[in-house]
Amino acid sequence: MRVAFLGLGIMGRPMAAKLAQAGHEVTVWSRSAGKHVEGARTAVSPAEAARGAEVVWMCVSDTAAVERLLFSVDGVESVLEPGMIVADSSTIAPSATRKFAERVRARGADYVDAPITGSKVGAESGQLIFIVGGEEATIARLEPLFSAMGKKTLHMGPTGHGQSAKLGGNLMISMIFEGFAEALTLTSKLGVPRERFMELVNASMIRSGVSDYKAPFVLRHDFSPNFPLRLMHKDIHLMLEAAREARVKLPGLETVEEIYEVATEEGNADLDYASTLALLEKWAGIDSHSTTS
Amino acid sequence: MRVAFLGLGIMGRPMAAKLAQAGHEVTVWSRSAGKHVEGARTAVSPAEAARGAEVVWMCVSDTAAVERLLFSVDGVESVLEPGMIVADSSTIAPSATRKFAERVRARGADYVDAPITGSKVGAESGQLIFIVGGEEATIARLEPLFSAMGKKTLHMGPTGHGQSAKLGGNLMISMIFEGFAEALTLTSKLGVPRERFMELVNASMIRSGVSDYKAPFVLRHDFSPNFPLRLMHKDIHLMLEAAREARVKLPGLETVEEIYEVATEEGNADLDYASTLALLEKWAGIDSHSTTS
Repeated sequence: MRVAFLGLGIMGRPMAAKLAQAGHEVTVWSRSAGKHVEGARTAVSPAEAARGAEVVWMCVSDTAAVERLLFSVDGVESVLEPGMIVADSSTIAPSATRKFAERVRARGADYVDAPITGSKVGAESGQLIFIVGGEEATIARLEPLFSAMGKKTLHMGPTGHGQSAKLGGNLMISMIFEGFAEALTLTSKLGVPRERFMELVNASMIRSGVSDYKAPFVLRHDFSPNFPLRLMHKDIHLMLEAAREARVKLPGLETVEEIYEVATEEGNADLDYASTLALLEKWAGIDSHSTTS
Repeated sequence: MRVAFLGLGIMGRPMAAKLAQAGHEVTVWSRSAGKHVEGARTAVSPAEAARGAEVVWMCVSDTAAVERLLFSVDGVESVLEPGMIVADSSTIAPSATRKFAERVRARGADYVDAPITGSKVGAESGQLIFIVGGEEATIARLEPLFSAMGKKTLHMGPTGHGQSAKLGGNLMISMIFEGFAEALTLTSKLGVPRERFMELVNASMIRSGVSDYKAPFVLRHDFSPNFPLRLMHKDIHLMLEAAREARVKLPGLETVEEIYEVATEEGNADLDYASTLALLEKWAGIDSHSTTS
């Protein structure tokens, strides 16, 4: 298929590369100049990339960035044609997603929200999971692209439901990690060696993909960013915004947000979100060097 | 071995039965009269049960109940002899555990904290996990009893560390479930069907033994008690008490405690702790009947 891929960040770049490798005719555009993808043409604006494409795929950092891609002067809207599909793998607000979809559909094109889970490793290995909202028939047309980039496509319902489910998933990640961090802080301060406590985690129902993935980093206090705190913080803001709009009270998440607020003030925004553990340890007076294994 | 088993609740009774089935010489005692275990003798007081036993095993509901078993007029202390071992599978305060152990050791006996995980089903099938604190040599002597009741014994360190690690594990359970409940409430209110959201949970890193175990009940709004809210609430109080003593700040858990407080006021104490979901749904104005699958 003829695909415009907009956004070549940590996730977007390997995704565009997978599409090119699968034989699709890919044109890429990125806000930061000088980024290229092997086997893909490079355009100078979102509009130029999207002109004549069957599918425009976006993967950028936030709601405002998607809005610019679509509706700024050089944006995709100006070249939309009936039958085109706009797909968005960014994680953005469900309500904004529905508004964007409406404007895109007014031009006779269709819109699918398709945020992803699976991290950088999943993007590089083509093993992403797509969490999708939109029309069944439109999603079916995208199947060759989904299967080139991912291992699974989960259809959550109409437009916006992909984003809603993605936010629910990241809400769970942030709460699971906070529980892990608070338990590690408490048990460490009470004298239980972390490696021993991990034996309990790994032997019982509290084990999860989150603890599996984070434990090795956390145990050696390596907070280099796999999922930067500022991006999880952005997602938490999206969850709380969606909750306010829907009149839902999320007390646990509100508390976690406050922790991310302080962690940001402490200069941890570009570290991994797991560095919230270091904040809890600081509050508990734990010397993090002595707990490094 | 000659074992006194004190406390025949949901967990204690099948544990005592497993010891008797394995050929140990078991004497039981329970606060509520009329409880018996096949193959075991029934005593009229903790002291009578413990007299002449090699091991006294306790499994009761809280710190005060353990204190009564040991130190009340008819308590175990009066019959302690050098070489006896007191083992406690209740979940109680780590600091109280250390004090109890000190008094027991003053009589020449030894003390092991051995709280359990694995639920009623684990107790009935002899598949419990013991989370143990105490002397290596003493724990080794208990091995025939551990293996009759459980599948795994995790040694966390000296006396009290079993309780500390158990509290850390239950802290994680309460936070994992709160995240699950908040995500379900948000995504439901945003219109995503629960069964669809569960596809995402089960396909990604947010899946855990907690979501595996609770999802079937939660999806049909069955809050009959597997782990009653009042017991999880008691454990949360133990965690916060231990945190205060150790000068540890646990913001996420403090918020979860407030939710349990309200759930208790609403009359949910004897339902499963998963009924905190119903509270979030009520706050969100979700009609729980319409979300029942």
